[in-house]
Amino acid sequence: MRRVQTIGEKPYVPIGVSNRHIHLKQEDLEILFGTGYQLTKWKDLQQPGQFAAKETVTIVGNKGELEHVRILGPVRNITQVEISRTDSFKLGVRAPIKESGNIAGTPGILLKGPCGELKITEGVIVAFRHIHVPPHFAEKFQLKDKDLVEVELGDERKTIFKNVLIRVSEKYVLEMHLDTDEANAAGVGNGDLGLIRKG
Amino acid sequence: MRRVQTIGEKPYVPIGVSNRHIHLKQEDLEILFGTGYQLTKWKDLQQPGQFAAKETVTIVGNKGELEHVRILGPVRNITQVEISRTDSFKLGVRAPIKESGNIAGTPGILLKGPCGELKITEGVIVAFRHIHVPPHFAEKFQLKDKDLVEVELGDERKTIFKNVLIRVSEKYVLEMHLDTDEANAAGVGNGDLGLIRKG
Repeated sequence: MRRVQTIGEKPYVPIGVSNRHIHLKQEDLEILFGTGYQLTKWKDLQQPGQFAAKETVTIVGNKGELEHVRILGPVRNITQVEISRTDSFKLGVRAPIKESGNIAGTPGILLKGPCGELKITEGVIVAFRHIHVPPHFAEKFQLKDKDLVEVELGDERKTIFKNVLIRVSEKYVLEMHLDTDEANAAGVGNGDLGLIRKG
Repeated sequence: MRRVQTIGEKPYVPIGVSNRHIHLKQEDLEILFGTGYQLTKWKDLQQPGQFAAKETVTIVGNKGELEHVRILGPVRNITQVEISRTDSFKLGVRAPIKESGNIAGTPGILLKGPCGELKITEGVIVAFRHIHVPPHFAEKFQLKDKDLVEVELGDERKTIFKNVLIRVSEKYVLEMHLDTDEANAAGVGNGDLGLIRKG
């Protein structure tokens, strides 16, 4: 396994870069891919049980569209489209910075699958940057669920991201999720390490 | 004018976001647009004498291409393509982080204009983030040409960019240049203010 999950003396966190992706509820998956459709696993993600599906959709905004947008599985209770701010300008959608799942009042968009189209009325967000933290790491470094911390990362493009949300759960593997704008601004990629500091 | 250039008590700097763009030497402009061609001004940029031209080109990489890439004028002594790291992945070109003009050893790429194609052998860079500083501002805040500073900017996505290069010249208007990855990672746009701190 690429990422060392042993805890050292400093709160280093491996980075996972999230490209634009979509979570679907079963009902919406079936509109796009057909009745009774099941997602096919393409590869496992770092977070246990989560996977990138083979299936992709096209997202169509007022100004442009994005093809081959990956679906992440398993299906969820809500349908949610996570894009970068760069993507939001290309699509022409005013996606707010939101924590995953917090989609009330967010804009909708048109999705196109091989078997149908679906106009969702909400669910397009730019993800609030966050760190998945298992309890043993949280305890060692005195981090609590919903804390906001800062993280220093990068080299040539060294950057400190403030307002990074801590999420603690036994289901999590230690990982900081950044979108492509954030990763590219700091010049970092999957598996690079950031250093957590209390803000 | 949108930007206040009066100097306050703190070293605030207005941000200018650079989308992907290209600088051309006259000889290369003529290959792409025809013999004796002159750029047409579309709009002035903040830096005196610099302008966005009406003309655009297509940049073609191994993995993808980018259409409608704006040419900035006036023509220069070297041809240089400035893209974001996000763009570099789309094109499939390993563009290094470089200061403008410092293109020795950088990769080339294929350019397409309405009258011809041009394969440049070097000149594709991701710009090193930098601040154009007029001498009176440099003096007040004790900044020297080629200093590296850090800049805090953004709100919801508050960010500190380190390794920001100071360039001082009488030709400059105070402005921090970020690319679209950097601006979007910090959630800032043209005219927003960053605060310079000595690193």
